[in-house]
Amino acid sequence: MTNKIKLYHGDGGAKTNELISQVFLKYYGDGMESSLSDSFVFTTKEAKLAYTTDSFVVQPLFFRGGDIGKLAVCGTLNDLTTAGAKPIYISASFIIEEGFDIEDLRKIAQSMGEVCKKNGVKIVTGDTKVVEQGCGDGLFINTSGIGVVSEKFVPSEIEPEDEIIITGTIAEHGTAILLDRYDLSIETDIISDCCALNHLITNLDMELPYIKLMKDPTRGGIATVLNEIAVHVGYNVELIENNIPICPQVKGVNDILGIDPLYLACEGRMLLVVKKDFGCRVLHALKIWGYKDAQIIGHFAKENQRLVYLQTDIGGKRLLPSLEGQTVPRIC
Amino acid sequence: MTNKIKLYHGDGGAKTNELISQVFLKYYGDGMESSLSDSFVFTTKEAKLAYTTDSFVVQPLFFRGGDIGKLAVCGTLNDLTTAGAKPIYISASFIIEEGFDIEDLRKIAQSMGEVCKKNGVKIVTGDTKVVEQGCGDGLFINTSGIGVVSEKFVPSEIEPEDEIIITGTIAEHGTAILLDRYDLSIETDIISDCCALNHLITNLDMELPYIKLMKDPTRGGIATVLNEIAVHVGYNVELIENNIPICPQVKGVNDILGIDPLYLACEGRMLLVVKKDFGCRVLHALKIWGYKDAQIIGHFAKENQRLVYLQTDIGGKRLLPSLEGQTVPRIC
Repeated sequence: MTNKIKLYHGDGGAKTNELISQVFLKYYGDGMESSLSDSFVFTTKEAKLAYTTDSFVVQPLFFRGGDIGKLAVCGTLNDLTTAGAKPIYISASFIIEEGFDIEDLRKIAQSMGEVCKKNGVKIVTGDTKVVEQGCGDGLFINTSGIGVVSEKFVPSEIEPEDEIIITGTIAEHGTAILLDRYDLSIETDIISDCCALNHLITNLDMELPYIKLMKDPTRGGIATVLNEIAVHVGYNVELIENNIPICPQVKGVNDILGIDPLYLACEGRMLLVVKKDFGCRVLHALKIWGYKDAQIIGHFAKENQRLVYLQTDIGGKRLLPSLEGQTVPRIC
Repeated sequence: MTNKIKLYHGDGGAKTNELISQVFLKYYGDGMESSLSDSFVFTTKEAKLAYTTDSFVVQPLFFRGGDIGKLAVCGTLNDLTTAGAKPIYISASFIIEEGFDIEDLRKIAQSMGEVCKKNGVKIVTGDTKVVEQGCGDGLFINTSGIGVVSEKFVPSEIEPEDEIIITGTIAEHGTAILLDRYDLSIETDIISDCCALNHLITNLDMELPYIKLMKDPTRGGIATVLNEIAVHVGYNVELIENNIPICPQVKGVNDILGIDPLYLACEGRMLLVVKKDFGCRVLHALKIWGYKDAQIIGHFAKENQRLVYLQTDIGGKRLLPSLEGQTVPRIC
């Protein structure tokens, strides 16, 4: 096999099949077997299923703490998690630019397979397209996923005094991408927080009835996602700056760059909205399960301007607006 | 709203939401409502479900007989059909190049909505990403889909003398793309055959038990797909040239261009492998349901070289090899 992707790898014939069997199937595990069918068939009992999709266009494709493959699988597992679902099957579809290095594709497929194995999920259907040089940007990956929703998770209306928890330190993915994309010569051991969060559903099994909403703060970071939630539920959000977990190196780098880490993406963190008075219980459970940096970072207020405020550590109050432009594009 | 896509339309914030509500939701119908969740949740009874995905990179985006949106929905509906499934939900994920015309995006979303409505399918989850100018090629769309498999369709082992049916005239999609991409000044009213085939499952309800395999001959046309099947099942395929339905204009254009239409994509045709002696029954049912050009085009032979042969109309026998390069790239 050649070591670069050619247009014929996307022709749906012998060369596409060769690429699939030698690169993808080799690493995906036993989910997607070589078959004539373009559809995967499975049997389900009576169930509530969650279904989601995401395309990934991150640059660079390999970054400290992960690559586009790991991100594509984790992103879809995490979207299923937000619905209270245990992921079972995912799809993986590739749009590859002619000339792409097959060895890199192999590494990316391997990452995807590893995350899947670790999380008991199977890649069961896929697709491979190739576009001419100059018509893509190396590689784009789409994943979609299906999961079984826990009966214990019943999203309910958010009310004032409901508490907001983040499961770990913020802005590490966005910062890692910044450092790698612009090749900033800042010495640091920051890596992306990119990881799958689906174990939250089993870890928090007893606490799910008190969780009203889960949302992973990816594009736009916690500030953007909380603004979206505030607009949707009709109340203000009050955050406490001191409680927001952030690793000092991440804070340092963003101070240097003049970027607000509240607007930078996480790819392995979840925001939980918890029924009032149950925040400590959920936090306690998270700590037991190893989410050592989890914190209650704020709550919903009675005020209904649908705004997000930050109580700063020097006692002030700062509005966190909904930004129109993204701080860092193409982070996922 | 501006009339061109900007990078900020992919930032996951207010501008992305504006694009989704003003362009996509407007045409999709009532499936995908504005919601905080990135996952769609649905309840299913005990069932066999089919699941598939495809990315679409066709050029040009608008072609005689369709556009990338119609193609993306039909392609996924047809892949579900090959599994004997009635499609219920699909996802739609966009990778848009900065500067793309929002009016064009609107037309494409409208096409998608129309096909969905016509076929009783809902777009329930999606994603929008934007890449910088020069890092894409206008628009790529990924669709995935879920369908409920008919209990009557039980794919079974293909044996010699099993018959091969095509549901309509071949090579129209590939020819339409050729004409539009290379702006060939040939006067013709050929249009792409791009259409959804999911009604086959209900139309052929009584005949499904006699159908051993369904496969839509897209990339590489019927010759490539039959080669793939021959390799998989271990027998030769014998086609009868005279029986292969092809519209004279399509034949004429391909004669001029020196292209073999047997290798050109269909996007609204299905190949059916039918238990021996039941070909006429299935063909009859197809004719009743309006597939007026459907034909029995050949059968599986006892010989096991896994080759595809064509009995030509002048009495010869021609091998239809498995081609390595595609006649026309990026047709879907």
